[in-house]
Amino acid sequence: MISVSIVNVTSYTGLELLRLLAQHPHFILTSVTARSAVGKRLDEVFPQLTSRPNVGDKEHISLDPGLVITEESARTDLAFVCLPHAAAARSVLTLLERGTRVVDLSADFRLHDAALYEEWYKHVHPAPALLETAVYGVCERYRERIEGATLVANPGCFATAAILGLAPALAAGIIAPDVIIDAKSGVSGAGRSPTPGTHYAEVNEDVSAYSLAGHRHLPEITQELEAAALAGGHPVNRSLPLRITFIPHLIPMTRGILATCYAELNQDKRGSAFTTAEVRSLYAEYYANEPFIHVVDQPPHTKWTYASNACFIYPMVDTRTRRLLVISCLDNLVKGAAGQAIQNANRLYGLPETSGLPAVAVFP
Amino acid sequence: MISVSIVNVTSYTGLELLRLLAQHPHFILTSVTARSAVGKRLDEVFPQLTSRPNVGDKEHISLDPGLVITEESARTDLAFVCLPHAAAARSVLTLLERGTRVVDLSADFRLHDAALYEEWYKHVHPAPALLETAVYGVCERYRERIEGATLVANPGCFATAAILGLAPALAAGIIAPDVIIDAKSGVSGAGRSPTPGTHYAEVNEDVSAYSLAGHRHLPEITQELEAAALAGGHPVNRSLPLRITFIPHLIPMTRGILATCYAELNQDKRGSAFTTAEVRSLYAEYYANEPFIHVVDQPPHTKWTYASNACFIYPMVDTRTRRLLVISCLDNLVKGAAGQAIQNANRLYGLPETSGLPAVAVFP
Amino acid sequence: MISVSIVNVTSYTGLELLRLLAQHPHFILTSVTARSAVGKRLDEVFPQLTSRPNVGDKEHISLDPGLVITEESARTDLAFVCLPHAAAARSVLTLLERGTRVVDLSADFRLHDAALYEEWYKHVHPAPALLETAVYGVCERYRERIEGATLVANPGCFATAAILGLAPALAAGIIAPDVIIDAKSGVSGAGRSPTPGTHYAEVNEDVSAYSLAGHRHLPEITQELEAAALAGGHPVNRSLPLRITFIPHLIPMTRGILATCYAELNQDKRGSAFTTAEVRSLYAEYYANEPFIHVVDQPPHTKWTYASNACFIYPMVDTRTRRLLVISCLDNLVKGAAGQAIQNANRLYGLPETSGLPAVAVFP
Amino acid sequence: MISVSIVNVTSYTGLELLRLLAQHPHFILTSVTARSAVGKRLDEVFPQLTSRPNVGDKEHISLDPGLVITEESARTDLAFVCLPHAAAARSVLTLLERGTRVVDLSADFRLHDAALYEEWYKHVHPAPALLETAVYGVCERYRERIEGATLVANPGCFATAAILGLAPALAAGIIAPDVIIDAKSGVSGAGRSPTPGTHYAEVNEDVSAYSLAGHRHLPEITQELEAAALAGGHPVNRSLPLRITFIPHLIPMTRGILATCYAELNQDKRGSAFTTAEVRSLYAEYYANEPFIHVVDQPPHTKWTYASNACFIYPMVDTRTRRLLVISCLDNLVKGAAGQAIQNANRLYGLPETSGLPAVAVFP
Repeated sequence: MISVSIVNVTSYTGLELLRLLAQHPHFILTSVTARSAVGKRLDEVFPQLTSRPNVGDKEHISLDPGLVITEESARTDLAFVCLPHAAAARSVLTLLERGTRVVDLSADFRLHDAALYEEWYKHVHPAPALLETAVYGVCERYRERIEGATLVANPGCFATAAILGLAPALAAGIIAPDVIIDAKSGVSGAGRSPTPGTHYAEVNEDVSAYSLAGHRHLPEITQELEAAALAGGHPVNRSLPLRITFIPHLIPMTRGILATCYAELNQDKRGSAFTTAEVRSLYAEYYANEPFIHVVDQPPHTKWTYASNACFIYPMVDTRTRRLLVISCLDNLVKGAAGQAIQNANRLYGLPETSGLPAVAVFP
Repeated sequence: MISVSIVNVTSYTGLELLRLLAQHPHFILTSVTARSAVGKRLDEVFPQLTSRPNVGDKEHISLDPGLVITEESARTDLAFVCLPHAAAARSVLTLLERGTRVVDLSADFRLHDAALYEEWYKHVHPAPALLETAVYGVCERYRERIEGATLVANPGCFATAAILGLAPALAAGIIAPDVIIDAKSGVSGAGRSPTPGTHYAEVNEDVSAYSLAGHRHLPEITQELEAAALAGGHPVNRSLPLRITFIPHLIPMTRGILATCYAELNQDKRGSAFTTAEVRSLYAEYYANEPFIHVVDQPPHTKWTYASNACFIYPMVDTRTRRLLVISCLDNLVKGAAGQAIQNANRLYGLPETSGLPAVAVFP
Repeated sequence: MISVSIVNVTSYTGLELLRLLAQHPHFILTSVTARSAVGKRLDEVFPQLTSRPNVGDKEHISLDPGLVITEESARTDLAFVCLPHAAAARSVLTLLERGTRVVDLSADFRLHDAALYEEWYKHVHPAPALLETAVYGVCERYRERIEGATLVANPGCFATAAILGLAPALAAGIIAPDVIIDAKSGVSGAGRSPTPGTHYAEVNEDVSAYSLAGHRHLPEITQELEAAALAGGHPVNRSLPLRITFIPHLIPMTRGILATCYAELNQDKRGSAFTTAEVRSLYAEYYANEPFIHVVDQPPHTKWTYASNACFIYPMVDTRTRRLLVISCLDNLVKGAAGQAIQNANRLYGLPETSGLPAVAVFP
Repeated sequence: MISVSIVNVTSYTGLELLRLLAQHPHFILTSVTARSAVGKRLDEVFPQLTSRPNVGDKEHISLDPGLVITEESARTDLAFVCLPHAAAARSVLTLLERGTRVVDLSADFRLHDAALYEEWYKHVHPAPALLETAVYGVCERYRERIEGATLVANPGCFATAAILGLAPALAAGIIAPDVIIDAKSGVSGAGRSPTPGTHYAEVNEDVSAYSLAGHRHLPEITQELEAAALAGGHPVNRSLPLRITFIPHLIPMTRGILATCYAELNQDKRGSAFTTAEVRSLYAEYYANEPFIHVVDQPPHTKWTYASNACFIYPMVDTRTRRLLVISCLDNLVKGAAGQAIQNANRLYGLPETSGLPAVAVFP
């Protein structure tokens, strides 16, 4: 068994890690921290964890709901860091120094460029030296580098949906490097702190756009889509750089992100337009061996991903306008956060990526 | 008082007309029809209408909840037709012949071109001669022609949001004639018949795109945006026709449409980019005298329009990409249907357009 | 016109008063206060109020969205006080001293007994002398005393539903003075301040009971049901006092309260059980002249009351157990707060109680 | 491995069984039936099942999404029957005859008395001889009889919540045999067929009571609470029979049932009132060894049970009225249906009851 800790377990991503680790066959949770709840048992903070050990069922390692929350994490093989940015980097530094491998769910190690980080997060990067070490944690793109890494930067939820949705098209060079990503998100993405913007009576029966001046997932989307284009042999360049408009919307549901992506199709080698069938088989091939990515032939629903690590992708050609449309959806707390973190941890230890991750969504 | 009838009152648009007419100072509802409920009283079909006359309050003309539903409408000055397309046209023909003026809430008289209608609605137009007579019922565009008309074609809900959001930009020629409209709609837009796609357990906690092969509001959006461009002195032409991608999404709420519109900004006369301030004042001027259109300086919420006839529009420039972004939102059953129908009817009779229409949204 | 002010307009009840006053034919809003928003215009705090005057429509007095919020209210004929308890009493004192009539939406003047107030609200009553002057603002019970009063104590939302649902049975002496009230409430009743308990992600897809140790609406329910029993000639007494279990539940919706009330039926004069028909006609008679109370013959839905001042009541006999069941529902922000406040204000000035109050619910 | 089939897999309970069986270590699904979908693959009917085998992860037996739906089930060791009543009994007969053990999720074998069945289900019982064989499938009450049984009647969702909530009090004789159960349910309990009563636009933002003339779960609640009282040595009798008022309410959420139960407390042996502490320890003892029943010291939330097999129970004494209050909640599709069915199947084969059942709820 590999011992793991969760740093800042009282966040929604920390809580989701608890749920997923409760049924993981190889990881055992031995330490949890949270500054606001030091000294409390897990089931005091999260009464839904109240449960008895699975007496007599030796096949499953269960979560211990009596685990006491501490201020500093105990020594474990692996740590999941669920702190806000900046605080996360400081924690990661300490953990790595003592030899703990880390999956960091914050934004601190996602961008390779410390200057870009400073521009978007408005403070100097606390550990720029680690930016080279950190691997951007999309297994579908970087599984070789994740295996054996010491630090994995778990991607943003919107970024995951957008990257998985657009990487195949940019890698294949079938679209112009100019995309619009219109994303719809459930409210849990805003975290566990109550605010006017997450107050039930105001969010219910409402939809609105936000972060119109620029959402912080934009630079990581740009970085990774450029990398995908380069990897596919269709690099973007200075004269025609990648140009992305990304607008998130808050919709009245708890979980789920659906990204609707729009781009101009290039012509194929014979100068004619790509068809939906061609695009779909290109996508299907790109994700042929992926256990969690499902290229489908009908518009997907976020509900198909609820509480699972699945991502559904639907590419099609709008024949009227010759635009490529890609709809990509996932559960922001699973494939968009805690599930992807466990997928990364599995890969990091050479375990099957699917270990401990639910294959089937909760529906309805 | 002007006597009015509602044809097919058992639809959601019919019901919403009832609610609005209940407080209208000049229209009196004297006839309601619905094939499936002939012989029933209004309050048998809609128990929420159970109410007593406002005894002693002579200022308000109340709805009579005891009005009996008939198969054919009685003779009235004005009729609101809430039938599905094709059936609507047949009803409109009869009504006009007997001298009743009509606001038709179906799609039958929205398109000027019978061939286009046939292409999208898959049947021959039942009354093509009327297509010239009918006025497209956006008061903000056609109030002069609506006043005194005999037949007003009430626009589609998505079309209203899109047209009001994009007309100023196209009229001013500040964008390329190539737009993407990503719309999010509540479920009431799908009507009152239960279907798997409107089943609570499946729609709740879900978002999905639909009508990807082409939604029927697309041709009326195209027709009206072309007209707006022409009216503004910036006609689109054969070499650079109007090119629209329009993707609606179903989100888990009852009322509301939010359209997020994307377009490439042209350069201004000096060859520099338009600013948000310039675009906003252009929009503010375009709608300067409109009682229901509010150009705002923050991203609007559909909840600001709940149960009211308001439409909020937020134009801004995405400075990173020089795209124009316009967010337009309204209540699909009010400004997107019944409210706009009453606004049209008010204008048709030379009444103030605001008569009987609630100015303030229900919030929260 | 009667000039009115709203004290603490930034609460949900204050906002709902704005919506309703916008279409009131006799009240004109001339002053609004809110400590946290002094100096701001109404439409800065509530962007949904953005609107233009109804140019040309002289029939409707519209709300002025440009009204500036002040710290102290200007002199008006009437004030609606939307402050929390204790603060409300202090404000009411000042208002009454300067000759302004008051409808107080707080709990400060609902209980006749200052000791009981202290027991439940945990502080000494700030103005006990006014407790005799204040009239409990249920027009259906006290309209004679409300007309001409200087201070009306607007009832609690749960209390309104419970009192209207049970008063007829207690007045008629058909039930034992021992009732269970199981109430279900939307989240807006918890007010506008974000808390963990009103955080969208936690309230959505959840139901729970709260205030199990005793909800503050219990003493006013007891006071008023005792009064109803006494008024009906069936007073409760020391040997068999009124005994009420009242359990509120929070359910995932914004507006609405549904109270399910259970009581043991007494036998009728001939020693036999009351029937549903008898109970229903007793209720129908009790509310025969009430414009807002609808005794119905099928289980009502809160949605039938959405945004309207209606209260639907469904009494029936559970023949298996000879229990009386009464289901009573209303919109907690309208008949449960702002709507009832306006109804009281109408009565206070001898206007028709229905003035300015929407007769028809927003549905769906 | 034990081979299992699901009869009528296209129901919500069938689908939930799919989800749970996908991670079961001992059951392998080899046959699925559904009349309306014969010949289709599982993932054609439920696109959310699209997934790849867990390549390389031998620890988990995954669901085969390519399983083809047939009209008649293939021979398996065990069958879960998800048909409507009457159809279920006919299917069960056939399955038992060919030696398949059955967990029947319908109501057909829950009542021991064929006459009572006929009274409530309005038709003659199709297989009355089996009523003696069938075991009512609440493991917490009948686990000895379930182990080795051939036919288990899986309880109704409301019945499970009510029985688990009230059995300890009746068994201990601390309450009068006269209870009120006010239950709140999510919409998935109404099944997968769209109806006006489950239409999103009408259920959203609404609460209402239903089945007021008597819900079909009432007789099974009565039967089982009588049995619990008898088993505890406090049988109800003819002079003081068990008297239950049970009122279900539909609330706007997908999953979850919360039952609020009210009863008069008896006096303890010394003639004084029971305290909350006494009642709670009585409950805690009653469920001391139960892996899924959690007696808690704060009002539980249905969300604590979402997608898990947990049932949370909160007993307390309302000291003002000396009533016992018990709040019991669960996920209607898991502990209220498919989860309990698997718990029963586990017990039937002598497996740990927790096998394959998620311990931790999906939250938020």
